[in-house]
Amino acid sequence: MISDSVGETSLKLVNAVTAQFPTVEFDLSYRFPFTKDEAELKNILGDALKDSAVVVTTLVSDNLSQIVSDFGERTGLQYINLMAPFMDIVHQKTGVAPLKQAGVVHKLNKEYFDRVAAIEFAVKYDDGKDAKGFLEADLVLLGISRTSKTPLSMYLANSRLKVANLPLIPEVPLPEQIKNVPKEKIIGLVIEPNVQQKIRTSRLASLGLDENSRYANIDRIKEEVDYALGVYDELGAFTLDVTNKSIEEAATLICEHLDNSL
Amino acid sequence: MISDSVGETSLKLVNAVTAQFPTVEFDLSYRFPFTKDEAELKNILGDALKDSAVVVTTLVSDNLSQIVSDFGERTGLQYINLMAPFMDIVHQKTGVAPLKQAGVVHKLNKEYFDRVAAIEFAVKYDDGKDAKGFLEADLVLLGISRTSKTPLSMYLANSRLKVANLPLIPEVPLPEQIKNVPKEKIIGLVIEPNVQQKIRTSRLASLGLDENSRYANIDRIKEEVDYALGVYDELGAFTLDVTNKSIEEAATLICEHLDNSL
Repeated sequence: MISDSVGETSLKLVNAVTAQFPTVEFDLSYRFPFTKDEAELKNILGDALKDSAVVVTTLVSDNLSQIVSDFGERTGLQYINLMAPFMDIVHQKTGVAPLKQAGVVHKLNKEYFDRVAAIEFAVKYDDGKDAKGFLEADLVLLGISRTSKTPLSMYLANSRLKVANLPLIPEVPLPEQIKNVPKEKIIGLVIEPNVQQKIRTSRLASLGLDENSRYANIDRIKEEVDYALGVYDELGAFTLDVTNKSIEEAATLICEHLDNSL
Repeated sequence: MISDSVGETSLKLVNAVTAQFPTVEFDLSYRFPFTKDEAELKNILGDALKDSAVVVTTLVSDNLSQIVSDFGERTGLQYINLMAPFMDIVHQKTGVAPLKQAGVVHKLNKEYFDRVAAIEFAVKYDDGKDAKGFLEADLVLLGISRTSKTPLSMYLANSRLKVANLPLIPEVPLPEQIKNVPKEKIIGLVIEPNVQQKIRTSRLASLGLDENSRYANIDRIKEEVDYALGVYDELGAFTLDVTNKSIEEAATLICEHLDNSL
């Protein structure tokens, strides 16, 4: 992966593609961010050829892109150029030439600072730490222990959403503030009790605690789930089943819900 | 953006490409995650054609990919297929056929759970909240207020690094634990005082506080920066200048440092 900036785009694509070949062993450690020098680029290409690697580039400079394609044609090195074909389409369609300036996607603009603020918000108002957060939040996640509230909040913060979350525990009364949050902002996470039991059991094991504790007891989990469903019903929350869903999948479904409820 | 899964890869690419055309107005709200149905796909393509949109796809199914390319050839709709060319290269090179199963990149495997644990770790040990974290961490970030410690910790957690951070304040003694952390795990963030002053001034404004407070005073900031540099020197920390750097750029440089110090 060769980039003139951070190289996140190629990493995302490489992860998506390699996941389609579970029996193939890939070596993904060859990442070359901030590559802007011709000689350096040629060295990397030479090494890639020796290793019969596949090269994925995200380079905005015509000059560097050209070096890769010339090298590929001359030597047979296989490469994927992610930026150029797409930039060409936009150029054609709009008549506007691209900047060809590396790293502009990481400009420190308002969007960037809003994202940083959202991440700080999510940390500050994680785990119901401060009930003030519920009224300032764009989104409030509710769920019993181990329903991915924290990582989901953090992931959604990257879309500049201010997310607060609250763990639901039958013995702990709800904070009053939650009742004043508009219901379309409240997401109630649900999970299948048997799956939840497995997650909690391994959580206890990882903490070196007794796996037979009440925390991982199936009857207790069912009681918690029932309690949570009652709360969602009372608050009119949108409920989302996170059983066997990744953070990315759950977050995408939450964003779809928000778009639809606008 | 049409994906049979979450669609993160196409979003990353679209963000990188559109940043190269700052004067062009793009409408990026047309995202179609979890698209697996032929009829639905054809509807989206029809709408895209009406809007003269450019379509970016991350589809693993041959069938759906074929529908997009046939439609493009027949109607002139411009599209970028991100997965197929790369999957073809891997297929050729290894003789192994891809799974063509949507969403496998989000499998809930050990890597996934390690990432979730790292995010929870970063939240738990943010802001020096619990000095126990320093000894369990893969990485400890030190810095004065407003040097991006929290968002950097969260971002690095996505690479499964357990990150703790500690704000440096001249009047507050360092926790003893920090002295037992191996020095290659300690990153000292530095920032140019005038840039830091601007950041703190707008921070105060956003909180509705007096912008002339000591917090944003240039002499005070210089005093804090000097103190921090002294601490980094004493601990043998790797120092990283985050002035005008985005989180992504700073994180990439930290990962390079870790790779080099192994």
